[in-house]
Amino acid sequence: MTDTTPTESQAPLAIDVHCHVVPDSFPPPPAGAGSDAWPSVRLSCTCHGTVFMGGRKYREIDDRCWNLQRRQQDMDAAALGIQALSPMPELLSYWLPAEEGARICRFLNEQIAGMVAGSPRRFVGLGAVPLQDVPRAIEELRFLMEQLGLHGVEVGSNVADISIGDARFRPFFEAAQALGAAVFVHPLRPAGMDRLVGPPILEQMLAFPGEIALAGAALITGGTLESLPGLRVCLSHGGGSLAQILPRLEAGWRKLDSLQAHMQTSPTALARRMYYDLCVFDPAIAAFVLDSFGDDRVVIGTDYPFPLREETPVRFVEGLGLDAGAREKLLWRNARGFLGMD
Amino acid sequence: MTDTTPTESQAPLAIDVHCHVVPDSFPPPPAGAGSDAWPSVRLSCTCHGTVFMGGRKYREIDDRCWNLQRRQQDMDAAALGIQALSPMPELLSYWLPAEEGARICRFLNEQIAGMVAGSPRRFVGLGAVPLQDVPRAIEELRFLMEQLGLHGVEVGSNVADISIGDARFRPFFEAAQALGAAVFVHPLRPAGMDRLVGPPILEQMLAFPGEIALAGAALITGGTLESLPGLRVCLSHGGGSLAQILPRLEAGWRKLDSLQAHMQTSPTALARRMYYDLCVFDPAIAAFVLDSFGDDRVVIGTDYPFPLREETPVRFVEGLGLDAGAREKLLWRNARGFLGMD
Repeated sequence: MTDTTPTESQAPLAIDVHCHVVPDSFPPPPAGAGSDAWPSVRLSCTCHGTVFMGGRKYREIDDRCWNLQRRQQDMDAAALGIQALSPMPELLSYWLPAEEGARICRFLNEQIAGMVAGSPRRFVGLGAVPLQDVPRAIEELRFLMEQLGLHGVEVGSNVADISIGDARFRPFFEAAQALGAAVFVHPLRPAGMDRLVGPPILEQMLAFPGEIALAGAALITGGTLESLPGLRVCLSHGGGSLAQILPRLEAGWRKLDSLQAHMQTSPTALARRMYYDLCVFDPAIAAFVLDSFGDDRVVIGTDYPFPLREETPVRFVEGLGLDAGAREKLLWRNARGFLGMD
Repeated sequence: MTDTTPTESQAPLAIDVHCHVVPDSFPPPPAGAGSDAWPSVRLSCTCHGTVFMGGRKYREIDDRCWNLQRRQQDMDAAALGIQALSPMPELLSYWLPAEEGARICRFLNEQIAGMVAGSPRRFVGLGAVPLQDVPRAIEELRFLMEQLGLHGVEVGSNVADISIGDARFRPFFEAAQALGAAVFVHPLRPAGMDRLVGPPILEQMLAFPGEIALAGAALITGGTLESLPGLRVCLSHGGGSLAQILPRLEAGWRKLDSLQAHMQTSPTALARRMYYDLCVFDPAIAAFVLDSFGDDRVVIGTDYPFPLREETPVRFVEGLGLDAGAREKLLWRNARGFLGMD
């Protein structure tokens, strides 16, 4: 018996592309700002606090959101080598005036860069850009890539109800391709909330999957992916329900000339250019995502440190019954490709 | 070589639960009505026409929408024995004042009953009820079941943006259970339309699956299914993306005490009480739906006669690689159970 099982030898390499950061304090809102949604944190002790968006209580958090030591303990326990740190999505602040949004993004990017600098072998950064103002977003993207050394950005599935696939965001995606920035897409203020019947937590369970699926679909049908073949995009939550919607889109595209005139590349081929995380909670869904998009496209994502997260991602991958090559892709190889780490 | 292959001997039994009717003419709007959405059809020849909702052009149709002979030819060609006729969903008219909606529903129900009477071995009927007024809807449900001999109703996934899982519709579902009425749920004016980027036809490809999934989820999380164990509900379009959302809901329900306090039965167990049609266009999706809900729950649905439909449903079922027992369930046995034909 050797002292190095395959699990142990691979585990330190495993990369989680979906894990969030909330700093433990925020700068005050700028004087005279339209600051009814400016984020802040009120600590109740050294390790627990509450996030507020302006005066609105948003979420209880703890120091896993900002404390590198606690994160690394949890990463070690889960056999994760690297986390790609991204802001808690509500912090993206697309609803603030552009200048205020840009300030929040700059603050978040510097915080994340500071965390990466604190343990550069364990963390890489996915920053924030103020997409309510595309030229500013491009400027901040360049700054976070060239000055802060982050690996890319997290973007919401929509920007104040405008789909991320809308043509107005094309210059941002062009800049991301040109700068080699990874783009991690996360559900944000999802569509369909008025269709839920039950407690508020259902938002994350029921509305997120459709929202991220429609964001991915819009990147397909809106032309972003077709026009930018070098763009690296990852959809969170396994792409939500995209795998199940895609065959329907593909069937329509094959059948309807009007849709083929609108997009020359098949929806399935475009979908397979994106990456998908494994924050799906079920081996059958993981297998379905793998079948739909291919084992070159699937990466670990946990939603750490929030309550509805994948707690044992390496064990989850190892339980999928894949061969060693595919397992290696899911654990770290695909994530390095998405993040541009090679 | 015998002259009766399994396909030929089974085909006449096959039942399509998802196929729509549009009458070739409508009564005029009532005098003094708020009739800006009253439906009508203008024929351009004996076999083609245009549906209008008030002054708004809605869809081009042809005589397959109303002509029993054409339908039966198409059914024979597709090896279908029986169609369950339901209104084109936009005709449900939930946005009209209740009295006008009730008039349209009565008209549709009598039209459908007339079609069934024209060929009672080939057709059964799923009628319409004015859910914008629940007591009227119950009254019409009783009429169409007891006086017209229909087998149930088609309902929209929402009623003027109120989810069909909302508590206000519970008395209607109680009546459906008491009367033994099948309830076929179809997407209608779906959520997420503002997330689509591309031509209008994307509504059916991209927004329908999420809309019907959220309707099914609301019947689960809102308590309708839990409180009415004898209710027979079928979700169209394979339940849309419900199969992919359900494990996430199940994971949350298992993890969060607050959600278990809200609903005692597991979401998966409740989902498996519903039926799902096979209007999914892809064998992999069909297999996924079967794995998710079980082969007792899956029925043929084509969306006949509209352009994006399953044209060879029997061949589709036979291509799924099922054993004879499961194939028989999908072709007709489950549909007879859902429709209450036994």
